[in-house]
Amino acid sequence: MNRRQLGKGILAGATLASVPSVAAQLPSSSAQWILTSPGVWKATLGTPEAITPVSARFIPPRVTAPFAGSPPIPPPISLGQARGCLLGLPLAADEEIYGFGLQFFSLQQRSKRRVIRVNADPRVDTGDSHAPVPFYVSSQGYGVLVDTARYATFYCGEARPKPTEPTGVVPSGTVPLYTKSLGMEEPSQVLVEVPLATGVDVYLFAGPSMLDVIRRYNLFSGGGVMPPEWGLGFWYRAASNATGQEILSLTQEFRDRKIPCDVLGLEAGWHTHAYSCTFAWNATRFPDPASFVTSLSSRNFHVNLWEHAFTHPSSPLFTPMRNLAGDKGVWGGLVPDFQNPQARKVFGDFHGKALIDIGISGFKLDECDNSDYTGGWSFPEISRFPSGVDGEQMHNLFGLRYQATLWQQFQERKQLTYSLVRSSGALAAPFPFVLYSDLYDHRQFVRALVNSGFSGLLWCPEVRDAASEEDLIRRLQTVVFSPLAMINGWYIPNPPWKQLDRKKNNANELADDWHPLEARCREIIGWRMQLIPYLSAAFATYARDGTPPFRALALDFPGHPEIAKIDDAWMVGDRLLIAPLFAGEPDRTLMLPPGQWHDFWTGNPVAGGTAFVIPATTRNIPAFVRTGSVFPIASITSSTGDQASRALDIRLFGDGRLPFILNTPEGESLLLSWDPATAKGTVVQHSSRPYTIKNWTKQG
Amino acid sequence: MNRRQLGKGILAGATLASVPSVAAQLPSSSAQWILTSPGVWKATLGTPEAITPVSARFIPPRVTAPFAGSPPIPPPISLGQARGCLLGLPLAADEEIYGFGLQFFSLQQRSKRRVIRVNADPRVDTGDSHAPVPFYVSSQGYGVLVDTARYATFYCGEARPKPTEPTGVVPSGTVPLYTKSLGMEEPSQVLVEVPLATGVDVYLFAGPSMLDVIRRYNLFSGGGVMPPEWGLGFWYRAASNATGQEILSLTQEFRDRKIPCDVLGLEAGWHTHAYSCTFAWNATRFPDPASFVTSLSSRNFHVNLWEHAFTHPSSPLFTPMRNLAGDKGVWGGLVPDFQNPQARKVFGDFHGKALIDIGISGFKLDECDNSDYTGGWSFPEISRFPSGVDGEQMHNLFGLRYQATLWQQFQERKQLTYSLVRSSGALAAPFPFVLYSDLYDHRQFVRALVNSGFSGLLWCPEVRDAASEEDLIRRLQTVVFSPLAMINGWYIPNPPWKQLDRKKNNANELADDWHPLEARCREIIGWRMQLIPYLSAAFATYARDGTPPFRALALDFPGHPEIAKIDDAWMVGDRLLIAPLFAGEPDRTLMLPPGQWHDFWTGNPVAGGTAFVIPATTRNIPAFVRTGSVFPIASITSSTGDQASRALDIRLFGDGRLPFILNTPEGESLLLSWDPATAKGTVVQHSSRPYTIKNWTKQG
Repeated sequence: MNRRQLGKGILAGATLASVPSVAAQLPSSSAQWILTSPGVWKATLGTPEAITPVSARFIPPRVTAPFAGSPPIPPPISLGQARGCLLGLPLAADEEIYGFGLQFFSLQQRSKRRVIRVNADPRVDTGDSHAPVPFYVSSQGYGVLVDTARYATFYCGEARPKPTEPTGVVPSGTVPLYTKSLGMEEPSQVLVEVPLATGVDVYLFAGPSMLDVIRRYNLFSGGGVMPPEWGLGFWYRAASNATGQEILSLTQEFRDRKIPCDVLGLEAGWHTHAYSCTFAWNATRFPDPASFVTSLSSRNFHVNLWEHAFTHPSSPLFTPMRNLAGDKGVWGGLVPDFQNPQARKVFGDFHGKALIDIGISGFKLDECDNSDYTGGWSFPEISRFPSGVDGEQMHNLFGLRYQATLWQQFQERKQLTYSLVRSSGALAAPFPFVLYSDLYDHRQFVRALVNSGFSGLLWCPEVRDAASEEDLIRRLQTVVFSPLAMINGWYIPNPPWKQLDRKKNNANELADDWHPLEARCREIIGWRMQLIPYLSAAFATYARDGTPPFRALALDFPGHPEIAKIDDAWMVGDRLLIAPLFAGEPDRTLMLPPGQWHDFWTGNPVAGGTAFVIPATTRNIPAFVRTGSVFPIASITSSTGDQASRALDIRLFGDGRLPFILNTPEGESLLLSWDPATAKGTVVQHSSRPYTIKNWTKQG
Repeated sequence: MNRRQLGKGILAGATLASVPSVAAQLPSSSAQWILTSPGVWKATLGTPEAITPVSARFIPPRVTAPFAGSPPIPPPISLGQARGCLLGLPLAADEEIYGFGLQFFSLQQRSKRRVIRVNADPRVDTGDSHAPVPFYVSSQGYGVLVDTARYATFYCGEARPKPTEPTGVVPSGTVPLYTKSLGMEEPSQVLVEVPLATGVDVYLFAGPSMLDVIRRYNLFSGGGVMPPEWGLGFWYRAASNATGQEILSLTQEFRDRKIPCDVLGLEAGWHTHAYSCTFAWNATRFPDPASFVTSLSSRNFHVNLWEHAFTHPSSPLFTPMRNLAGDKGVWGGLVPDFQNPQARKVFGDFHGKALIDIGISGFKLDECDNSDYTGGWSFPEISRFPSGVDGEQMHNLFGLRYQATLWQQFQERKQLTYSLVRSSGALAAPFPFVLYSDLYDHRQFVRALVNSGFSGLLWCPEVRDAASEEDLIRRLQTVVFSPLAMINGWYIPNPPWKQLDRKKNNANELADDWHPLEARCREIIGWRMQLIPYLSAAFATYARDGTPPFRALALDFPGHPEIAKIDDAWMVGDRLLIAPLFAGEPDRTLMLPPGQWHDFWTGNPVAGGTAFVIPATTRNIPAFVRTGSVFPIASITSSTGDQASRALDIRLFGDGRLPFILNTPEGESLLLSWDPATAKGTVVQHSSRPYTIKNWTKQG
């Protein structure tokens, strides 16, 4: 039975027709796949709502790579409108699915129920996330986007039909308790319900590979983001209550002590009032904001400002936003109606003139997710906004529209930004914002990083505090191999390496000898600086063809069930594999994908295709490079603004037959190739800030 | 401003009219309170659904106590039908609200959002519960039932209107972070949304006191349950895989070692297949079920059988139920359509003939809640049932209808039962079922007990295992002062006092000297036996006028803000206050309500009205009796079936001016009164099993 027959078999099956009231609602299969772009089709069920991620998109789609075949699965079947809309899609035996946005609790989603619902603090594996996305990718090489801004429930083969035939008497003497077959071996269905929508459009993305599916989805979203180079440097967020003077001292300490840093973040204390926010400088802490920002910029620090959108009545934005806000308040502030273009303009223009024009490089957009299920704040689902959306829709829209509001200001100024945000959703790939959250479990942080690449999201597993030196080091080792390398010291006046204990740190009681830990951290932050050309190349590929720069091993090594399960290791770009260690665990196991690899740190060859144990005594984060790789290592400088950072050591792993290619959307390029026959390297580049090559070094 | 004016003021406020699209939907106040019974009114908004807790009720309402006044609050106002139905009810300054069923995380619900959604394993304070009820009680002396079987969200003053006026600049230098006023000081609203209903009926219950409100609600439900006396004895559940022979040995050990026990529970192992269930005896373990049950009955053990409703294809019930089930399966079994009378009859008749007729006294109805948000099982919301309800409705209906299915069989046989169930809902007071769950936090268990009395529910904080001897003792001390005193040994072959360690218990490696711990437990279980006449009286009052036998201190002592907050102490009946200790905590504080009290154990007087600290070294559970109480203490026997249990010691606390009255619905009665002037007691009784009086003892 081929896949299309299988799909038809499922759709005609007894499951859905067994209850008369449901069977009567089965339509005459009116939905059809309509080709919208190579390898991308759309099917409409019922009457879709006016405001959805696609219909209200900000960025136009880009044409995807050619695809000659027909749709890989039959169109979705409508299963009635008794409550919202319900549709069915096929799920073959042994088919696995991935995606649904920034999931913290699981990687493989078959046999689970995923609720696409914005929740800042998910506690169980329900699908809730601060960046849920109604999009999944199948191991059979296609992807499905259900285009809704409402809460949607995906039953990923988890809703089982009732049994229809009796069986004989079960042999006595054994009582299986809690036997729950995951049912992978049987064909099933993905059932999708949107309880409060009258219809939806469904988009289908062809492969043939899962990575091709994601590329198509990301190009459909508008293509991946290419961050400014400084965004890929190291970030540090200062204590919330620090004064400008204290921050200038801290940044000087970073420069004096050779801690690289490109971005300095200010937390809530820069506002005159926070929770809710005023967006106005606290004159006691920052008597001359423009001079403060200029002083940092002159030393190659970019300044990032924390805020949330809820607008305090004492804010200069309050009166202009008063009629451009929802009917409910949060923390005593207005909730901007970011679905309304005028609200985005008023809110954005204020930020542009008051903040970007004095040199602010980016923002950290906090609290734009939803904590009604946990923390008990945020606007309720029953909120109404002047644009016509309700609170449920707004929760799914708010994060991306808040991003768009501020990004637009940078675009108008022809400036790049790289910013932080706590909520996102469908079609996010082009947005220059990286997700973070208030969660903190290290394994969950890593799993989220692995999952992010399935849904066009970037994720920062930020370092805040640590239970031990080991924990600090392991977390820092993880974050420097992520989209945004940051320590968030918002509640400690001194960097964590000087004192891990929060209370003592706040009392300025530093550890007896913090220098060795500082040195370890400096070394790890240095790795990040060395990686920047490599990261730039990965992002440039993201921008060009939608390939996520950080992604699950399942995408690069399909067809291996053991690799498909790995949720604690990830690919960075096309040749680097990271398998972090976690504090408190004695070791970790890694199933290295097939092929020849090299230890990134030593160059020693390591054979793939088998699992091995890595003990916790391993000093550096375990990292492996595909054999043949040409790999550029930048010089460590205080910031990317230092031209010396462009002096490269070129490492050759194995025979060097895999050239390194960096091609940015802005037209800058670097090609490093090695000829094993002649043992000579070639450099071709086009850049306003050219790279210099120090050495070509054979590593293994 | 009086309460009615306040209500009107709120309803006319700017909050709801500030967004034009909402204001346009405001109806011309068509809803009106219609008197349905003394002190009970109904208002209809929109078009209520066909199947709701009240419209599909099993038990008719009983007339409540006279109430001459007008409705204490204005009718609910409809706030539009854009998504389901939304209504508003007043909430005055400083008004507190309670209820919403079996809540584990909080007692006072103002400023919170409560989702009425069945969830077996709530992890955060959202309202989710395995027994949520869309009913709340106000400190102002009224109650509101929103009659829906759908998920409903109650915003208890938590959804705040947006601010409307700018304020001046906030003084610089202070940045309040996370300032979130609970807003008790301002009048607000309770907003209720039922996203998938086209309308609802709302019922209003008058006081004047909160306890009166609850009485009216419980009488409206049909009145409280009066359990059979054996149900108030001690319960023990044997290991799931125990054979009949092993259970006969265990029960003989109980009798030999003078551990009182009235009910012996069998867990899953009695079925030929469990998860899903067959309801057929496993012949290896139970070759002759009828003899087995008779053997236990002859020694005054009642037998309770575990099951869940999901019907395995090898069950004799499978074929008859096949067309009386939902379209989805759970654990490979059918989901009975308990909303369908024929389904209840077929399922119930089988149980009646096969199980009740051989002497089974009750059931433990497991897994009838919902774990889709946590454990990932149960039928999905998109399920359809032949009766017309969907999975969302069925989750709210399933528990009570499952109870009704089996209770009906006992009623047809003119037999009483007292059973266990894991889900319940609105109008549950008459049902002879006590809730339990898989949760286990001792403080949460106590809070649930305190909360249960607001919503017509009974809750068993069962003892399963314990981290320490202290924990075992403290948990056992709690459960004997609850509606059902049970140790659930389903995963241990030996009683926990013989070995706390689960693995060792299963290996029959008993503790070196378990006799002292057994003696402690025997003593505590003995307390339960001594309490039975007192508990019977409290339940008889529940049956007669709806007064919950276990309840929050707020109900007996209104008007004291410090007492209103107490979620770790409760009243049993009208004169006994229990304030448990929790293992691992050094002490506890108790604000004893005003008036004169006595230590229950010593009779020593204790002055109420002040808070005091009770150290963890306190041997017995802290318990206090109102001064003046006449309190019957039964003799400790192996079971309530022993006539010797009716020999009473009468304890007099203080002057003995508060007589003890027991008046069952069946017409049995006992009146114990004491004349302080003559120092003589009087006994008046009517019973088929008369009490004898051993002593009248002055205790304090």
